[in-house]
Amino acid sequence: MVTKPTLHTCISPALLHLYDLNNAIVVIIDVFRATSTIASALKNGAMAVIPVDTVPKAISISEQIGGIAAGERDGKIADGLSHGNSPLEYSPEFIGGKNLVLTTTNGTRLLYMALENGADTIITGSFPNLSAVCDYLLEQKKNVVLGCAGWKDRYNIEDTLFAGAVISRVKEAFTIHCDSSVTASLLYEQQKDRLLEFAPSLTHYHRLVDRFGLIEDIRFCLTPDVANVLPVYSEGKLLKYPFSAQ
Amino acid sequence: MVTKPTLHTCISPALLHLYDLNNAIVVIIDVFRATSTIASALKNGAMAVIPVDTVPKAISISEQIGGIAAGERDGKIADGLSHGNSPLEYSPEFIGGKNLVLTTTNGTRLLYMALENGADTIITGSFPNLSAVCDYLLEQKKNVVLGCAGWKDRYNIEDTLFAGAVISRVKEAFTIHCDSSVTASLLYEQQKDRLLEFAPSLTHYHRLVDRFGLIEDIRFCLTPDVANVLPVYSEGKLLKYPFSAQ
Repeated sequence: MVTKPTLHTCISPALLHLYDLNNAIVVIIDVFRATSTIASALKNGAMAVIPVDTVPKAISISEQIGGIAAGERDGKIADGLSHGNSPLEYSPEFIGGKNLVLTTTNGTRLLYMALENGADTIITGSFPNLSAVCDYLLEQKKNVVLGCAGWKDRYNIEDTLFAGAVISRVKEAFTIHCDSSVTASLLYEQQKDRLLEFAPSLTHYHRLVDRFGLIEDIRFCLTPDVANVLPVYSEGKLLKYPFSAQ
Repeated sequence: MVTKPTLHTCISPALLHLYDLNNAIVVIIDVFRATSTIASALKNGAMAVIPVDTVPKAISISEQIGGIAAGERDGKIADGLSHGNSPLEYSPEFIGGKNLVLTTTNGTRLLYMALENGADTIITGSFPNLSAVCDYLLEQKKNVVLGCAGWKDRYNIEDTLFAGAVISRVKEAFTIHCDSSVTASLLYEQQKDRLLEFAPSLTHYHRLVDRFGLIEDIRFCLTPDVANVLPVYSEGKLLKYPFSAQ
């Protein structure tokens, strides 16, 4: 009997240390909006997205390499930057052929935590690249940790919903003994046909829509496969997979 | 307009520091089985349940006060003790008029964390005392944190299900902006009429039933109001509320 690889869902960065990342693909999930924006930028021709943890670093690296420095803090464009964390900012005309140096509240932080915890492979996922993520996980046949970025270590629904969407497509190929994964699946199955109607139940919806009017961002971030590329982390950069010859 | 008190759900002890406990009632929830056992023992006439963090402490305190030392580690009776963490062990004949000195893997630990984090009031809840918990929260009109004990800091479903059961009964009296509470509610509403059929989906079910045959414990722990008393923590002891004159 062939043993299937395992799949776990980690619902907050504060729980990441409980999971063995050494032989696992870690999927960084920050639906609103970092990992939606990363997929959008790479889909629209960005050479790479470079995730960094601070605004000064975003500025200095973008100056060195001639890229676009961008990022958000608490849902809005970070002080000192001209570009934020909206997937709709990065059209092919604007981002094509350029590097995007991006810093965000939750997603970038979780990516660095996964790196420090020895993740074998790091990819990023959100509804806009749902199929690309699932295809890759099915192809690789390795253990998987679905890492939800949450909001400042708190659980959030949208990242867990995406974990549920992945699980609903790949579950037959994995051994899943994980209450977080069961919850993610049940939540997704319950809400999958009404994601946009469900969105006002989420705390982060109100942060983004009531305060900043970002309803079009929400719509994009909850639409499957509108930026269906796979960002894979390699030597400081998120690159579109499979990597093209330089 | 009267401002309603807030209600939050904390789905793992590792996230407890994110919540303000200073002006809040913290409900310690360890459905399988500590908080079900605590309710059962007090319902059946225990004078008090004394939660302690180690087996040696359970033994020495029980010797000092002439109580029953009990506890579990990893789902079974802890080494060195004769009594475990099953709500069915504590019949009126056995526990009536005695003190139960109890140490458990998750529930006792969370109780001490809540105490260290400055909780205003600590009570314990599980399905067997669902109504007593809800009545108390509605009567007190204070902020509430529903604290899920989980399993060694991992999220578990059964504790969150109970949080959902509480929320479904008290939500009109509280301001709830909390994705964990929304998830708990949705999960409970989805499963409330089939809790026993749903139980085999939970990892902890398999730990208790497949390994130790404790299906009757599971049944008790998921049945509302079969031990409908309210344990309130006071000076090192969990006592039945309202406290009777000594």
